[in-house]
Amino acid sequence: MIDEVISPRFKELVGQDITGIGDDCAIMPLNEQEVQIVTTDLLIEKVHFLRSAITARQLGFKSLAVNLSDIAGMGGTPTATFLSVAFPKNLGVGWIENFMEGYRELSQKENVPLLGGDTTNSPDNIVINVAVTGRMKKSQVKKRSGARAGDYIVVPDKLGDSGGGLQYILDELPKDKFSKSLLEQHLSPYPKVSEGKWFAQKEEVHAMMDLSDGVGSDLGHIVKASGVSADVWLDKIPASADLKEASDKYGWSIEKLALSGGEDYTLLLTIDPGHFDQLAIDFQAAFGRPLHVIGKITENEAGIRYLRNNKEVEGPGKGFTHF
Amino acid sequence: MIDEVISPRFKELVGQDITGIGDDCAIMPLNEQEVQIVTTDLLIEKVHFLRSAITARQLGFKSLAVNLSDIAGMGGTPTATFLSVAFPKNLGVGWIENFMEGYRELSQKENVPLLGGDTTNSPDNIVINVAVTGRMKKSQVKKRSGARAGDYIVVPDKLGDSGGGLQYILDELPKDKFSKSLLEQHLSPYPKVSEGKWFAQKEEVHAMMDLSDGVGSDLGHIVKASGVSADVWLDKIPASADLKEASDKYGWSIEKLALSGGEDYTLLLTIDPGHFDQLAIDFQAAFGRPLHVIGKITENEAGIRYLRNNKEVEGPGKGFTHF
Repeated sequence: MIDEVISPRFKELVGQDITGIGDDCAIMPLNEQEVQIVTTDLLIEKVHFLRSAITARQLGFKSLAVNLSDIAGMGGTPTATFLSVAFPKNLGVGWIENFMEGYRELSQKENVPLLGGDTTNSPDNIVINVAVTGRMKKSQVKKRSGARAGDYIVVPDKLGDSGGGLQYILDELPKDKFSKSLLEQHLSPYPKVSEGKWFAQKEEVHAMMDLSDGVGSDLGHIVKASGVSADVWLDKIPASADLKEASDKYGWSIEKLALSGGEDYTLLLTIDPGHFDQLAIDFQAAFGRPLHVIGKITENEAGIRYLRNNKEVEGPGKGFTHF
Repeated sequence: MIDEVISPRFKELVGQDITGIGDDCAIMPLNEQEVQIVTTDLLIEKVHFLRSAITARQLGFKSLAVNLSDIAGMGGTPTATFLSVAFPKNLGVGWIENFMEGYRELSQKENVPLLGGDTTNSPDNIVINVAVTGRMKKSQVKKRSGARAGDYIVVPDKLGDSGGGLQYILDELPKDKFSKSLLEQHLSPYPKVSEGKWFAQKEEVHAMMDLSDGVGSDLGHIVKASGVSADVWLDKIPASADLKEASDKYGWSIEKLALSGGEDYTLLLTIDPGHFDQLAIDFQAAFGRPLHVIGKITENEAGIRYLRNNKEVEGPGKGFTHF
């Protein structure tokens, strides 16, 4: 819808030095050295969350987290947030207070003020829209379009835990010793703002974006924006011990959860391979965990190819699907 | 809800030189001379509009208009808009295209680009959130808190046409020779951005805000923010000939529609009385219509008093009520 119905109508109104629709955030000039970045996300009950499966506090936290993740995807620092909410009348003040507490908790952790918004009634479903402004050095903006042939495709976190947590919710599975970390990752993802800012300072990081719809879908955006192709190495996809155990127990496909479960809210990067080893050492020193190479940007016109032990195989299918 | 549940939680995170919740827009520093202003509004089907009563194109236009009206209320120039929409699956591509056409029409008229947003499914109701950024000279920002005792209370448009149009919709009245202009005002209000920018340059304008919830409600915000009281002269409320005729025909209270019908999307100002006459002449020359004095800011602690021919009377009741 965006590519066909929306973008073409506004192209002529977008000025020079402005990046509109098509990256994690819009980019507007701020001053000689800095740009402003803006992102917004809409969350609708029964589409993006089930009221019975997430606490009010978790939902408040997550509503902000998914937006800060877009700021992280550019490498920016969030400066202000704007919250629009429509609450059904049966929700109760306690629920709303807990929601705002979750929102405040992450606001405080990332030191970003809520500066405005809108509150209204909803006839039925909870509706939440968050808009976030951020700022960063113009020279450090990391776009989806920066990937070059030969780049490693890199993620700074294990993938699929959120997708595993969602399986527990959708299949109404009983809690067990693996479910806690998976549900935590699904219900209270922590946005990688610090990591994004760190990567933004590194010239060897060529492309970066918020990884929220699954590698299958999001890598497609980088490949398209950069005019390149990509090989994804399925045997290199990092997964947590809990996800492996739960997948064994319930017969889930780890690859499918890791590549198209969505809602990882981490970063997807392409990095100059000649400088990768030192960067990975520095990242480990700064954040206490490794970087994971999951594939390579290529020059051929194959689009995204999936390989297992160097043999091409069927991909994991489309990304994030709504409830 | 905003005063009790939301604002207190975020006070300590709001930095110096920043105005958060409590005016038409948030105000953030941009550079030495300018500030950035941001506003956002959420529209929900069955709460803010009925799908059967407004065309897709009108709704697209109006969704942007109500936000630009908040920018107008500060006296700023809009710089970018961000549109989040949730559409039910049964809506059809044609509807969405017409919606975007209406949004584009006003974007083009006010020369402001759509730079981002979010599109998603909705289980039932149409949901629209628009966020708008704007900029203006720091010295020209018009706040709700600037009113001084003795100021005239002024509106630059006749009031209540939108409320009259809404009556035609709610009561399912047949179209007649009065309904066209009233429905037009309700379904396609034009935001007073040019007027707002003009007033922003005038020092004798002490307070200004978007008039969208009715004088009864919005004047309350100015009175509270400025620590003053106000007299409203009911016999001076300007109403259009069509609204008068339709009110005669259907037995509506013009005062009620004009003061609490809401959705006028014009401006509410308080102006130094010593400079008012010249300002009104200049406004007439610039915009081809008069200014209307509808009352006076006072020093007493009576809050808002309503007078008809200098005699205090009962007020018109609360402002804008949802469907």
